[in-house]
Amino acid sequence: MTKNKDSVVFIGKKPFMNYVTGVVMQFNSGVKEVTVKARGKYISRAVDVAEVVRKRFVQDTDIKEIKIDSEEFQGDDGKNVRISTIEILLSK
Amino acid sequence: MTKNKDSVVFIGKKPFMNYVTGVVMQFNSGVKEVTVKARGKYISRAVDVAEVVRKRFVQDTDIKEIKIDSEEFQGDDGKNVRISTIEILLSK
Repeated sequence: MTKNKDSVVFIGKKPFMNYVTGVVMQFNSGVKEVTVKARGKYISRAVDVAEVVRKRFVQDTDIKEIKIDSEEFQGDDGKNVRISTIEILLSK
Repeated sequence: MTKNKDSVVFIGKKPFMNYVTGVVMQFNSGVKEVTVKARGKYISRAVDVAEVVRKRFVQDTDIKEIKIDSEEFQGDDGKNVRISTIEILLSK
């Protein structure tokens, strides 16, 4: 399956409904799969976005796959910092 | 497969390493599967716990399944409140 590059929504600190609307608009434009991605503390929010989309806005949406991972890098203080990531693949 | 009731770790506000140790101890006691569960803002933390366990402590651990869901209930002010949940099934 070809993955449309546009069908990724990164979750950050903007108002919550911006992200919900972003995902809904992708689906309305004809995209069949949208990936909701987030890092660190925004992971909880990514789950909220996916749930609100699928339960309130696009009701024939399935959660096709969920991946979690983590990246380790050196922080400003020289210590290793680990940050977790999530990818939630929503499919219509 | 019989699911051991003890092999669930709920993530909350205790110190982070408590949960990591909890999961590691389950595996060390011979359990083959541990489910890390969380709700709301603790979801990010649940992902962190799963990642630290599998990358730093129990390196032959796989993420077997991740489920997200949400519950809706009436809050104190009469409004509907939605809270998201996650279940991460770690398998050794």
